[in-house]
Amino acid sequence: MRYPEILAIRSAPASVDYDEKDAILYALSLGAAAEPDDPAGLAFVYEKGLLTLPTFPAILARGSGPIIEEGGLDYLRIVHGEQRLRLLRPLPPRGRLVSQARCLGVVDKGADKGALVNIEDTISDAETGEPYATVILTLFCRGDGGFGGPAEGGLPIHEVPDRAPDLELALPTRPDQALLYRLNGDTNPLHADPETAVRAGFERPILHGLCTYGIAARAILRAYGENRPDRIAAFDVRFASPVYPGETIVTRMWKDGAVVSFDCVVAERGVTVIRNGRCELRA
Amino acid sequence: MRYPEILAIRSAPASVDYDEKDAILYALSLGAAAEPDDPAGLAFVYEKGLLTLPTFPAILARGSGPIIEEGGLDYLRIVHGEQRLRLLRPLPPRGRLVSQARCLGVVDKGADKGALVNIEDTISDAETGEPYATVILTLFCRGDGGFGGPAEGGLPIHEVPDRAPDLELALPTRPDQALLYRLNGDTNPLHADPETAVRAGFERPILHGLCTYGIAARAILRAYGENRPDRIAAFDVRFASPVYPGETIVTRMWKDGAVVSFDCVVAERGVTVIRNGRCELRA
Repeated sequence: MRYPEILAIRSAPASVDYDEKDAILYALSLGAAAEPDDPAGLAFVYEKGLLTLPTFPAILARGSGPIIEEGGLDYLRIVHGEQRLRLLRPLPPRGRLVSQARCLGVVDKGADKGALVNIEDTISDAETGEPYATVILTLFCRGDGGFGGPAEGGLPIHEVPDRAPDLELALPTRPDQALLYRLNGDTNPLHADPETAVRAGFERPILHGLCTYGIAARAILRAYGENRPDRIAAFDVRFASPVYPGETIVTRMWKDGAVVSFDCVVAERGVTVIRNGRCELRA
Repeated sequence: MRYPEILAIRSAPASVDYDEKDAILYALSLGAAAEPDDPAGLAFVYEKGLLTLPTFPAILARGSGPIIEEGGLDYLRIVHGEQRLRLLRPLPPRGRLVSQARCLGVVDKGADKGALVNIEDTISDAETGEPYATVILTLFCRGDGGFGGPAEGGLPIHEVPDRAPDLELALPTRPDQALLYRLNGDTNPLHADPETAVRAGFERPILHGLCTYGIAARAILRAYGENRPDRIAAFDVRFASPVYPGETIVTRMWKDGAVVSFDCVVAERGVTVIRNGRCELRA
């Protein structure tokens, strides 16, 4: 890691064009029409009156790559640790965006453990400059600890309540879920190639963390947001373990005022895959 | 219909660019990785060593629209009757093609019945000019009969044998199959919008005929072609009735030498959806 230079890096503004096909592919790759009786109906999957899912900005953010590269991070040893979203307003079904990222801060966990690097990517309208969303990534950089930075700090971690969940919603994934999700742009072979997956220590190819993230958001949007994407103001998670395509993701929710705390468990294995979830609802 | 002028129409050569993402989306939209134990493995859905499905040219043919328009056909009353393919060699996983169509011939069934219009679209390499495939459409033009053309002719119809099928293979479709298939380019609302479907006389949105076509080809490719796309030399069908997304398509096959006769039946309703199927195998 190039420290403290990394703290001053701004990625070059990246232009991002997308259209209805991208928005629909994203929704279908999260299973948005997999159940014939999905209460969202065609809202996210048909161009007439098309709405975009609240987590759509997560796949349109383009700035973290340049920060990783210019910041001198050891790319091959990075684990995607946390994902946050501040959504000012849902994206329109087509548009031209600008994505620009900066390093929000770093934490030095020591040479044997690694570093935490927080990157904030702002997604704005290319024409008006008005922001739509901020996407915040926390990278756990296992190869970058011991760089002499602060040992404390980082972003606050939300704790879910101690009581039993108020609501649980199970959403299935399919054997080809990761293969479809890859078409959104993250073509890391870890999500398709059995050999790569085994070399990385997994039984078989794993689902993208951001796919699980989007599925959790679909669950909360249905349970507490009437499937209206403008109801979601923030959506933050910590990734705990991967999902294998074909497994069922159970989102467990606790609602306290405008905040829905949540985590996600794989029904088949009882493993927690998302922890410390926090969704902020807008009235 | 502008007759006999239609017989002389050649569509302007259309340039068609496609890449691995298009080929993989096409395969996934035919359910090519829906079953975790599909014997084709990742052959059609992962960019490493990617092969394209033999029916892929069917969605890259661009010439029939201009023939329909310049030929003065009543677009709204056209039914897609038959589909044929001559495959010289499978398409590479990315490329630039030229699609050019001509009217092969017309049959006048009378003013009360309509017209049959055969359109042949040749798909060639844009650089070398070498053809990959010929895609032949038969349109049943219900609004164009009685134009004074020949009452007989047209393309030969293959009859399947009288004996019990040699082999049957059931392939499932999913509730969102048509929504995904639409992303290949045919965004007719008939395949997504319940109101449009009901107005057209269907219970709900129907699967694209070419999706059923591609699924039938996957069945034969698996049963008799070792999942090697170069084994398919020709693939011809007559569409009999639509499939509803979520239904199971049973392909019934009869093999006689290099020819596999086939039809397709929806398991849930016992309705024949493809008739007069003929697949020619290459050694």
